[in-house]
Amino acid sequence: MATRSVLERSRSALHLRLLAAQRRLAAKQYGAIIVIGGNDRLAASELANQLTEWFDARTVRVCAPDAASAEGRPFLWPYWQEVPAKGRMTIVVGDWLTRTTLEVARDELSGDPLRARLKSLRTFEELLAADGTSVVKIWLETPEKSLRRRLSEAEDTDAEGWVVSPDDLLLAKKSSLNLARELRAQGSGKNLPWKVVIGGAETKLRDLHAGLAIAAQLGQASRRRAAAKAKKPGSRPRGLLESAAPHPTLDKKAYGQQMAKLQVRLGRLTRLAYTQGLSTVVVLEGPDAAGKGGAIRRLCGLLDAAHYQVYPTPAPTPEEKARHYLWRFWNKVPAPGRLAVFDRSWFGRVMVERVEGFAQDAEWARAYAEINDFEARLAEAGMVVLKVWINISKEEQLRRFHAREDSPHKRHKMTAEDYRNRKKWDANLRAAEDMIARTDTPHAPWVVVSADDKRYARVATLKAVCRALSDRLD
Amino acid sequence: MATRSVLERSRSALHLRLLAAQRRLAAKQYGAIIVIGGNDRLAASELANQLTEWFDARTVRVCAPDAASAEGRPFLWPYWQEVPAKGRMTIVVGDWLTRTTLEVARDELSGDPLRARLKSLRTFEELLAADGTSVVKIWLETPEKSLRRRLSEAEDTDAEGWVVSPDDLLLAKKSSLNLARELRAQGSGKNLPWKVVIGGAETKLRDLHAGLAIAAQLGQASRRRAAAKAKKPGSRPRGLLESAAPHPTLDKKAYGQQMAKLQVRLGRLTRLAYTQGLSTVVVLEGPDAAGKGGAIRRLCGLLDAAHYQVYPTPAPTPEEKARHYLWRFWNKVPAPGRLAVFDRSWFGRVMVERVEGFAQDAEWARAYAEINDFEARLAEAGMVVLKVWINISKEEQLRRFHAREDSPHKRHKMTAEDYRNRKKWDANLRAAEDMIARTDTPHAPWVVVSADDKRYARVATLKAVCRALSDRLD
Repeated sequence: MATRSVLERSRSALHLRLLAAQRRLAAKQYGAIIVIGGNDRLAASELANQLTEWFDARTVRVCAPDAASAEGRPFLWPYWQEVPAKGRMTIVVGDWLTRTTLEVARDELSGDPLRARLKSLRTFEELLAADGTSVVKIWLETPEKSLRRRLSEAEDTDAEGWVVSPDDLLLAKKSSLNLARELRAQGSGKNLPWKVVIGGAETKLRDLHAGLAIAAQLGQASRRRAAAKAKKPGSRPRGLLESAAPHPTLDKKAYGQQMAKLQVRLGRLTRLAYTQGLSTVVVLEGPDAAGKGGAIRRLCGLLDAAHYQVYPTPAPTPEEKARHYLWRFWNKVPAPGRLAVFDRSWFGRVMVERVEGFAQDAEWARAYAEINDFEARLAEAGMVVLKVWINISKEEQLRRFHAREDSPHKRHKMTAEDYRNRKKWDANLRAAEDMIARTDTPHAPWVVVSADDKRYARVATLKAVCRALSDRLD
Repeated sequence: MATRSVLERSRSALHLRLLAAQRRLAAKQYGAIIVIGGNDRLAASELANQLTEWFDARTVRVCAPDAASAEGRPFLWPYWQEVPAKGRMTIVVGDWLTRTTLEVARDELSGDPLRARLKSLRTFEELLAADGTSVVKIWLETPEKSLRRRLSEAEDTDAEGWVVSPDDLLLAKKSSLNLARELRAQGSGKNLPWKVVIGGAETKLRDLHAGLAIAAQLGQASRRRAAAKAKKPGSRPRGLLESAAPHPTLDKKAYGQQMAKLQVRLGRLTRLAYTQGLSTVVVLEGPDAAGKGGAIRRLCGLLDAAHYQVYPTPAPTPEEKARHYLWRFWNKVPAPGRLAVFDRSWFGRVMVERVEGFAQDAEWARAYAEINDFEARLAEAGMVVLKVWINISKEEQLRRFHAREDSPHKRHKMTAEDYRNRKKWDANLRAAEDMIARTDTPHAPWVVVSADDKRYARVATLKAVCRALSDRLD
C-alpha cells in the first residue's frame, strides 16, 4: 500500500499528465469521450467528479444520458446527443455497456437482438474513433462482497431516501460480473477495449488507477490518429438514373383528383400512426430544381402540424461541423408517432461532400456502411424509413433554372452555386448511382421517382409514402 | 366574392410582398415569430404549409411545440426552444393562447394562476419584441356551425383513424370563442394584438386574408424597431459586498468533518428530490478566482451523476448569440427531479455585458425584470431556485492570481482577461450590488457567501443548498 504522501505525489503528477493530454487533444482538434461503466454507480459518479477537477473544466462536461428518454428511439439515441465536439471531452456515466449488461441480466435481451445490440455498440465506437474522437472506456468493478457491504450500510443508515435499486443489487452479483466481462469483449470496437479498474475501500487510490488508465489511453489516441483506411468503392453498373424513355406525365385533371385523394389518405395514415406510435423517416434527395420542396409541401398538405416536421439541410452550423456528420441527424430522430421529412439529408456525405472533395476518400467511402447502420438502428426501433430520389433530366433542370430566373416569385431560389453544381452533373449522377446501389436496403429502401413532370413526381412521392405507412398499419 | 382570377392575382401579389418582407427582416437581422392560433387545427396546419410555400423556405420553419413535453417545466418552456434566430422566421402552430383557452375552458385554470399565466404571456411577447423579434399573431376562427359540420363529416367518412378530439369540439363552442376573445385581449403584449381571420369554406381566400395580415404586421415591425426605452436604474445603497469585517474561516479539521456530513446530507436530499420530482436550479456567481468551480465540485461530490448537471457559461456560441440571451438558459431548465448547477449564468447580462458595454443601457436595464420573470416561471413550476454570490476581497483575488500563476496545476485557469477584468473591480462590484438588490426575490433568493477562506465558502454553499432543498422536502 502506498503511503499517503506517495499517493498524493502520484495524484499530483497524474493531474499534470491529464492536463497535458487535454491540451494536446485540443491543439489537434480531437474530441474525446471518456466512458465510465461498471457495477458501482456511486464510484462512477465520484470518479467523474474527480476528473472534472483534474481536467481544465472549460472543455470537459459530465453527462448521464437518460436511457428512458429514448422512448421509442434507438438505444444509442441518448448517447449520440452527447458526442463531443472536436477539441472537447465528454465524460459519460451510465454507459451503453452497463445498460446492456443490465438488460441481459434482467432477461430482457438475448439472441439476435443482443447480437444486433453488440454490433451496434462496436460500430458506434469505431465510427467515433474513425472520425478522430478518442474513445476511452473505464470499467469500475467493486468486488461483490465489498459492494454489498457498502450498499447494505447505505440502506441501513439512511432514513431520508437513499434507495439501493434492484439494478444495483443485480449488477453486484458475481454472475453479472462474468456476464459483463463477456459483453465487454463482444461489444467493443476494434482496438477500443475496456480498461478494468478494481474499486475498493480507498477512493483516492482507485481514482488514481483510473486516471492513469485514462491518461495512457488519451496519450495513445493522440499519437496514432485512427486512420481508418477504406478503399474507394469500385465502379458500379451505370444507367440507373439515365433512361432514354420519356418521363411519365399526368394531366391537370387526373393530378387534381389523385392528389386530393392521396392527401386525405396520408392525413388518415399519419393520424393513425400517431395514435399507434409508429414513427416515420422520409428522405428526399435529387438534383437542384428537381422539385423536392414542392413535393414535400404536397406531401404535408393535409397533415396536422403536430404530427410532422420538415427538416431542410443547409450547410452545417459551427456546432454541427465540429461533430460527426451524423450527429445533427441523430438529433432529429422523430419522437413516437411522428413523421420526419428530410429535404436532403445524411446522404450529403456521399454526394456533395464526395463530389466537392469536402470529405476525404476514406471518409465518404466508409460512410455507406455508417449510413446503413444508422438506418438499420431506426428500423430496429420500429420506424418506417423511406428514401426518395426525385430524378430529373439534365435538360429539364436547365429549363427550370431559366423559368426560375424569369419568375419574381422564384428568383430567390437561384444562387450562384446552381450553375456551378450543374457543371458537375455527371459526377453527381455517378455519386447518386453509387449511393442508391450501396444504401438500398430492405428496411430502408430507395424509390426513384421520374420528375421531369412535376405533377407525376408529386403524386408518385405521395403514393410511395402512403404505401410505406399502410404496409405497417394493417 | 372575388372571381378566381382576381383571387389568384391577389395571392401572387401577396407572395411577392411576403418575400420582400422576409428579405427586409433578414437584411436587418430581425427574427420573426408568426403564431397561428384559433379554433381550427386543420386550417392552422394548412395555413402554415401555405406560408412555407410563399416564404423563402431556407429561413423559415414550422413547429408545433408539444405542450406535454414540458412535463414539470414552465408552460412557456416548449415555446422558448423555438425562439427564432436573428434574420429567421418561426411559424408556431399550437400556440400559447389556444392552449391557455383550452385549459380555462376545461376548468383547469382560473383565478390567480390564470392571471399569472396571462401576465407571463404578455411578458414573453414583449421581451421578444424588445429584443427585435417581430411577434405576429393570427387567430383563425371558423364559425361554430361550419366547423362542426366539417368535424362531423370528418368523423363520418373516415374509417382509418381521424379522431376529432374533445379539444376540437370544446374550441368549436361559441362560449370558447367569447372566452378566447377575452384572453387574447388580456394575454397580449403591449402593441402586439392578435389579428383575427375568419375561416370558412374557401381555403385560398382565407389564406390570402391571413397572409395579408401577416405582411402588414411584418412590414410594421420592420419599420419601427421596438426601441424599448428603459432608464438606467438609479443608484442603490452601497456596501453590501464590501465589509470591513474579516471573512470567517474554518480550520481543516472542522472543515473535513462538516464537509463529509453535508455531502452525505445533500446526497440524500437530491435522491429524495429525484424520487419526488422536485427540481432545483442553483446559480453560482462571483469574481474571477472566487472559487466557484471548487465549491461546485464539493457540492456535487457525493451526488449520483444521473441526478445533476453542471453548466459552465462560456462565451455564447453563434447559435446562442443570434437569439435572446435567456434562450440558452431556458434550454437547460432541469427535467423533473434533477438539479442544475450554473457556473455563472443569465446574470452575465447585468454583469459582464453591462460593465463591458456588450449590452446597451436599455438592454441590461430591462434585464432585471426579465430575469425576475424567468425565475418566477421556474418557481411557479415548483422548482427550488437559489443564487449564491461567492464573495472575495480584492486583495484575496490578487493572492489567488499569483498562486495560480505559480502552480503548474492551476496555470491554465489564468488568461489575459483576468488582469483586465480586475481593473474594473469597482464597476463589477457596483453591478453586482445592483443585481443582488434588484433580483433578490422570495421565490429565488440570493445568498452571499464570504469566500476569502475557501473552506468556509464551500461549507456555507453546501449548507445553503441543503437548506433550500430540505425546506421543500418536509
